[in-house]
Amino acid sequence: MRFALIGAGRIGAVHARSVAASPDVELALVADPVDGAAERLASAYGAAATTDVADVFADDTVDAVIVGSPTPYHVDQIVAAVDAGKAVLVEKPVDLDLARADWCLAQVGGRADRVMLGFNRRFDAAFAEVRSRVAAGEIGDVEQLTIISRDPAPPPVAYLASSGGIFRDMAIHDLDMARFFLGDIVNVHAVPQRLDPALAEVDDYDAAVVTLTAASGAVATIINSRHNAAGYDQRLEAFGPRGALRVENHTATSVVLDAAGVSGARGPHLDFFLERYADAYTRELAAFVAAVREGTAPTPSLLDGRQALALADAATQSARTGLSVAPAPIPASAAV
Amino acid sequence: MRFALIGAGRIGAVHARSVAASPDVELALVADPVDGAAERLASAYGAAATTDVADVFADDTVDAVIVGSPTPYHVDQIVAAVDAGKAVLVEKPVDLDLARADWCLAQVGGRADRVMLGFNRRFDAAFAEVRSRVAAGEIGDVEQLTIISRDPAPPPVAYLASSGGIFRDMAIHDLDMARFFLGDIVNVHAVPQRLDPALAEVDDYDAAVVTLTAASGAVATIINSRHNAAGYDQRLEAFGPRGALRVENHTATSVVLDAAGVSGARGPHLDFFLERYADAYTRELAAFVAAVREGTAPTPSLLDGRQALALADAATQSARTGLSVAPAPIPASAAV
Amino acid sequence: MRFALIGAGRIGAVHARSVAASPDVELALVADPVDGAAERLASAYGAAATTDVADVFADDTVDAVIVGSPTPYHVDQIVAAVDAGKAVLVEKPVDLDLARADWCLAQVGGRADRVMLGFNRRFDAAFAEVRSRVAAGEIGDVEQLTIISRDPAPPPVAYLASSGGIFRDMAIHDLDMARFFLGDIVNVHAVPQRLDPALAEVDDYDAAVVTLTAASGAVATIINSRHNAAGYDQRLEAFGPRGALRVENHTATSVVLDAAGVSGARGPHLDFFLERYADAYTRELAAFVAAVREGTAPTPSLLDGRQALALADAATQSARTGLSVAPAPIPASAAV
Amino acid sequence: MRFALIGAGRIGAVHARSVAASPDVELALVADPVDGAAERLASAYGAAATTDVADVFADDTVDAVIVGSPTPYHVDQIVAAVDAGKAVLVEKPVDLDLARADWCLAQVGGRADRVMLGFNRRFDAAFAEVRSRVAAGEIGDVEQLTIISRDPAPPPVAYLASSGGIFRDMAIHDLDMARFFLGDIVNVHAVPQRLDPALAEVDDYDAAVVTLTAASGAVATIINSRHNAAGYDQRLEAFGPRGALRVENHTATSVVLDAAGVSGARGPHLDFFLERYADAYTRELAAFVAAVREGTAPTPSLLDGRQALALADAATQSARTGLSVAPAPIPASAAV
Repeated sequence: MRFALIGAGRIGAVHARSVAASPDVELALVADPVDGAAERLASAYGAAATTDVADVFADDTVDAVIVGSPTPYHVDQIVAAVDAGKAVLVEKPVDLDLARADWCLAQVGGRADRVMLGFNRRFDAAFAEVRSRVAAGEIGDVEQLTIISRDPAPPPVAYLASSGGIFRDMAIHDLDMARFFLGDIVNVHAVPQRLDPALAEVDDYDAAVVTLTAASGAVATIINSRHNAAGYDQRLEAFGPRGALRVENHTATSVVLDAAGVSGARGPHLDFFLERYADAYTRELAAFVAAVREGTAPTPSLLDGRQALALADAATQSARTGLSVAPAPIPASAAV
Repeated sequence: MRFALIGAGRIGAVHARSVAASPDVELALVADPVDGAAERLASAYGAAATTDVADVFADDTVDAVIVGSPTPYHVDQIVAAVDAGKAVLVEKPVDLDLARADWCLAQVGGRADRVMLGFNRRFDAAFAEVRSRVAAGEIGDVEQLTIISRDPAPPPVAYLASSGGIFRDMAIHDLDMARFFLGDIVNVHAVPQRLDPALAEVDDYDAAVVTLTAASGAVATIINSRHNAAGYDQRLEAFGPRGALRVENHTATSVVLDAAGVSGARGPHLDFFLERYADAYTRELAAFVAAVREGTAPTPSLLDGRQALALADAATQSARTGLSVAPAPIPASAAV
Repeated sequence: MRFALIGAGRIGAVHARSVAASPDVELALVADPVDGAAERLASAYGAAATTDVADVFADDTVDAVIVGSPTPYHVDQIVAAVDAGKAVLVEKPVDLDLARADWCLAQVGGRADRVMLGFNRRFDAAFAEVRSRVAAGEIGDVEQLTIISRDPAPPPVAYLASSGGIFRDMAIHDLDMARFFLGDIVNVHAVPQRLDPALAEVDDYDAAVVTLTAASGAVATIINSRHNAAGYDQRLEAFGPRGALRVENHTATSVVLDAAGVSGARGPHLDFFLERYADAYTRELAAFVAAVREGTAPTPSLLDGRQALALADAATQSARTGLSVAPAPIPASAAV
Repeated sequence: MRFALIGAGRIGAVHARSVAASPDVELALVADPVDGAAERLASAYGAAATTDVADVFADDTVDAVIVGSPTPYHVDQIVAAVDAGKAVLVEKPVDLDLARADWCLAQVGGRADRVMLGFNRRFDAAFAEVRSRVAAGEIGDVEQLTIISRDPAPPPVAYLASSGGIFRDMAIHDLDMARFFLGDIVNVHAVPQRLDPALAEVDDYDAAVVTLTAASGAVATIINSRHNAAGYDQRLEAFGPRGALRVENHTATSVVLDAAGVSGARGPHLDFFLERYADAYTRELAAFVAAVREGTAPTPSLLDGRQALALADAATQSARTGLSVAPAPIPASAAV
């Protein structure tokens, strides 16, 4: 199975390494319009390079495409890749515009089972373990899901301007996690915080608490912050009638210190998502390869990507109005 | 310093024991209209007993009154005790009716510094430690406060019918804790859950997530459930720009088990509030005694009791309407 | 049940408070030859005071005696109290001289069931929980017992000169704990450490690792240090074929800190034994009172006190010779 | 840099994978006299295979050799590889016979800096972190080192017969760890346990407590067991005048469970050393490659291997005699 990779940036490098380390697959081609970027990454893994993304779709020896380009390119590249008969693993989000995501769904139509969304956290060993123990009935049906998700430090304001805002850019992972555990969400309420007044300029927030009501009656709470002095903070608790399963934060090692005035002190949380989810990227790729090989529909799907975006839109609207908002339904045109 | 105790039920017994165990104070009188109840409790501590609560106010040798009667009697007994020149420690809530609480505030007027509300959790060693470390600036100004508070098992539906509902009966402790850490709250949103359909009958809920916005911009999240298979669940996290301070759950001992399939397993959480907050009741009484002795205003105050009730009202209204609700301001008549 | 207390020092004050706080028992008399010492302690609890210890034995209204005098007086006071028909709770150790302990056993003879040794750690809720879960078979028969026991700071060298050395003064608690879990010990090996060279002067050590082989084949390891920067360090692990039960260190509260460079940091260990074992002293007294009331033999017994001393002697000899040492058997004269 | 691997068994497969995953190195040749074994492993990584180990030494294109053959072959293969001008990474132990290890040292002579011993635990991120924080002075000079090391289940008795016994086969890792932290050891005492009587047949033990006195005055305690119901148990505590650094056990994920009767329960410990030390093998190889590239002496050295074996011999002798034993000094013939 031969892969092409679109986008040779930070996330592209993660995927290139995952492909190279996987048995029985091959990184064949890296495409990036930035001069020299594809070349640098490709040469480290013995792959070909191009600055013309169209080469990816034209190459008949390529079986699967990883889309790691900037968000505005995702939709067109998904459609082009599927049209070229390739399987696609695309980074989140599908797009920042729900209408575009719906258009993408409509275009892909019955071939949606060829597309997988890169919600890498579903493949984190700890989150996945909780999910499967929940599915096995260990704590009964989840009643309350609590997600604490804090980044170590905010991105530059310039980045935020085109990010789609905290809900589409950062919370979208947590919103997908809520769906992963609770299924359909019928109502969204967001309490936004703007701790850094400079964010008024880009009409964004740097913290928020989002509550989501599931069709099942369960409630999810997402607590987000763009900064965290202790590092990358990723916790989750699924609570049901027979108990709770919690994912605790990760530190680099299991070393603890007892000293004057302190005991049981661990090192800092891991720095950020590349460290925290390093294994998750590998497991994500393995799931994609397995689905393509077996001809089954990969999960999370393109629809999952669309639904997470709809929740992010609802949260954005709730943050602005103070009202609870139902996520936008899938238009008839996009329904398969 | 001589104490009278009104109410010889479960919580009255807790207070009687605290008074008996305190140096330099004395339990002089126990009053309870239920035949024999006061007598039984009083005899264990060498105190006098009466079935006529008016005896408490008429006894000139009594310096301080602990009001542990059913909620509907609180307001009248506070006013009568203050009128009789006594200091008062009254169990939460002040009343279930905000107008009655405001009437009480107005009646007590300038003598409000003679009344302390029994929000015992403020005196829990762990919560108090977080509060004082926050006050010392260890993590900077709190930005997000997260409270998880779950009871082991729901009370009977019959009790719930006259309880005032989950927000006035159960969440009120957590709402006070939000004010303890964040000060004035300007906005309340509640997502209620009714997992047991029988609660429709009494128009109550058995779980909820409440978000509160403070005047400071901080946001508190309260996650409540009336049941928890693992026992009494009482956790809190204060998050600020320089870090987070967390209170973890309590178990009876520090014993952990490693065995086939499990490691680091502790015993169950403590059973309920009498075990979890046993020390807090003692520290609460000591704070009350110290304030009375030194002639200072005890904290939490009657006003704190009124404000927590106003937040519970706002949460109740939000749960019913789905809208965010600002807590009712203090009427001019009640302002001091 | 009326108590007399011999010794109004630090440990005497602990016992006086325990007696005062216990239901249905009374502190009647405090005896201490130091001018004013008994008076000061007795007055706080409404007890009588004397500087003549003989008054304790002569007082027919006294049912039970707590011996909290300096170690050299223990044996004579045990014998005198038993001869006077009183039940005795005596602080550890019985004596520093094994021959004296054996003489005491011989004198007390068939009345040994009137004497309880104050090995307070057996009454610590955590250690007691492990012991009872082990007894219930949860982990099978203990194969390895590991005790880490470190004091926060060494006593003055002047104290050490008459302390009997680290094994008789400090490790004796841990040696008793080894017997509590493993029963008879047949072999002792000690590796001593003298980190502070000033201890050469008093021929003592400030740290040691002691290994004990039980008749059952189980092995106990005791790791001692006279200093610990993080506070009082008291841990234990019982390991058996089906798992391990561990007692973790205690901190004042359950508060943890996440901040730059650190996560999950608890406060310091408790300061020293009065804090760590405060509840254990109360439970110890309750066990003594119950045994006296029911006329059963209290545990730990005078013999337990003698056996712990024999282990401390064996450890001392092993530390000096480098050889393994079998503890001295009970002489025929002391056997009951 | 081209590697040859001798031994295509379980540990050989670990090394093959590490080499394949390392940048800028290549697995060129796998040698194993067992029919087909080298072929199977080599083909998975595109390497050549041979059943004649002599081919390894004869191949001039091979820069470095990993010796993963059975222990009796180690010494001859080390010498042959060094004579052939190759760098060597050899699995522990050097040999089961100290005289053979000394002979090996003598043969290798001044070329000892071409040989690295595979004490993989030195490269475990947690142990290495403690070592470097100790070296940085965080807790002062180590006074007491405590190592708990328990295997999940014993190997077959048939394996034990030729294993050299628990000290040379299992404890040797912990003995090396004691040297890693404390340097020269001057005295060894071992308390052996034979819980399974069948081990009498092979004159071996299945548990032991070893105490080691370092030249510095520090004492190390090693607690070993061949079985552990909870899985692979690998803990270490370095205690010094300013505090303690501890390595806690590892579980597969950070998931914890709260349920009826239990709280904070993690999953089981990792199964065994391949899981627990997977990263350590990778880091070990990287250290070896870096040393060879830079022409520096790799650590742990051949001498470290010899010294660990001398400690294992001393522990074996102590276990049999009950006496403390000084490890055998390096004979003049082996000194460089």
